[in-house]
Amino acid sequence: MKSNLWIEEKHGDFLGMNYKVEKVLFSGKSKFQSVDVVQTKGHGKMLLNDGLVMVTERDEFIYHDMIAHVPLFVHPDPQNVLVIGGGDGGTAREVLRHPGVKKCTMVEIDEMVVEACRKFIPQTSKDLDHPKMNLIIGDGLEFVKKTKEKFDLILVDSTDPIGPAQPLFGKDFYKDIFNCLTDDGIVVSQGESGFYEVEMQKKLMSILNGLFPVSLLYNFSNLTYPGGLWSFTFASKGLHPLNDFKEERVKESGLKFNYYNKDIHKAAFSLPTFMKNNLSLFLKG
Amino acid sequence: MKSNLWIEEKHGDFLGMNYKVEKVLFSGKSKFQSVDVVQTKGHGKMLLNDGLVMVTERDEFIYHDMIAHVPLFVHPDPQNVLVIGGGDGGTAREVLRHPGVKKCTMVEIDEMVVEACRKFIPQTSKDLDHPKMNLIIGDGLEFVKKTKEKFDLILVDSTDPIGPAQPLFGKDFYKDIFNCLTDDGIVVSQGESGFYEVEMQKKLMSILNGLFPVSLLYNFSNLTYPGGLWSFTFASKGLHPLNDFKEERVKESGLKFNYYNKDIHKAAFSLPTFMKNNLSLFLKG
Repeated sequence: MKSNLWIEEKHGDFLGMNYKVEKVLFSGKSKFQSVDVVQTKGHGKMLLNDGLVMVTERDEFIYHDMIAHVPLFVHPDPQNVLVIGGGDGGTAREVLRHPGVKKCTMVEIDEMVVEACRKFIPQTSKDLDHPKMNLIIGDGLEFVKKTKEKFDLILVDSTDPIGPAQPLFGKDFYKDIFNCLTDDGIVVSQGESGFYEVEMQKKLMSILNGLFPVSLLYNFSNLTYPGGLWSFTFASKGLHPLNDFKEERVKESGLKFNYYNKDIHKAAFSLPTFMKNNLSLFLKG
Repeated sequence: MKSNLWIEEKHGDFLGMNYKVEKVLFSGKSKFQSVDVVQTKGHGKMLLNDGLVMVTERDEFIYHDMIAHVPLFVHPDPQNVLVIGGGDGGTAREVLRHPGVKKCTMVEIDEMVVEACRKFIPQTSKDLDHPKMNLIIGDGLEFVKKTKEKFDLILVDSTDPIGPAQPLFGKDFYKDIFNCLTDDGIVVSQGESGFYEVEMQKKLMSILNGLFPVSLLYNFSNLTYPGGLWSFTFASKGLHPLNDFKEERVKESGLKFNYYNKDIHKAAFSLPTFMKNNLSLFLKG
């Protein structure tokens, strides 16, 4: 007899997303959060932190394409990249596909996430031992406050602003980010849902708008985030994601992507009217 | 004591989307399908046919903006519009906002859907008695086979290809559609999910590609359809949705939209790489 096991992600008190589970592969509780890896029927292996879906094998390519390749193709020569969070390894994996990148530092607070993904989700974690990787288990907040290093690109691949990621949606953090970016640096951050998390999205954009000459936002479509439409914020000391995007570089790179392409790059910055209206005070560039 | 009532939409045997229900407003069974209207906690009133979410008050503007205004702003002078299905009335409502439209015929097979929406969802059904409306309760398939009328625009606002809508995903239907379009006519159809319904999407695009000089597809993001990312197909006897789109007409129209705008119009036709690959044989124009 096979058990009829389902996992539910609750969103507020009005929405639930349920996934059929074939096998629970890992279930732990770290200092920071609960960490689960399950084999689902429809989406391959799935990582959940505190019961929220972070990554599935079926759709992780979308998130990781869009957090990494948009800024990597805007910056003319990104060599030193910092990932804050991103414990599953998928963001670093995409960064490392660009041969011009000389070093990818990743600061993940929760070792249990990294170890669970190393063991059970090699699809995302496979490049965590890449020679250009500098993996640090530690607090991203502390790291950007103390480091003397300058980065061309910082990717804030965080969970939602509850639990350990809460300070990653604060102003002090982004002041430190500003300070450890090079003069043409870019920071891209997980930007929540324009449908369900409007206030959080406005708060984050307002912080970026106050600190950076360019503060914009772009969208992508994920299978397993509530509402489907999700955002990344884009802030920089000057580089513009469309005006400074040399689209021929995508072809010249020879890289193949399953979601990203030059048209998607440009289209992603076209916001639905209700999002433009919500964010009008904070979009700049 | 309040009951803890939830409604679940199942997708295949691996995904469920659950919505908190405050009140069941209507529950009936027509000749064609089950028809339910519920008051949800998070999405306003919701219409379900055969247990699948068709429309919610919270996000219906997205679907209806995108099925209607994309072709209405591509065609230079759409006067006679046919809607197949669309029993909730939202598509007709958007069509009728364009003052150049002289007549909007809507052929909905299931009177129970129309009556339930008239009574419980005035937000979508409010213009069903508009003086330019020609509402026919009948079979869209039969209608396009027999009518002598020619339409500038046909919008196939159908449910999924199970139940009564199944033949609306067939070749014979689209041959008849072709025949009752004017020489610069356009047909836009509910085009399913590029994630979960790849085969259905390919089948529909293959039919359109075989019949029409222009066969393309565009995306939008819905809150309450599985996976979020959803498509409309666009086929025409010659008009191209980007090359023949005079974007200044959007501003000149004076119409305000909550999702649609000129940038979204263009961005919607930029497909993620995996969709381009899946549909490469059938995209033309």
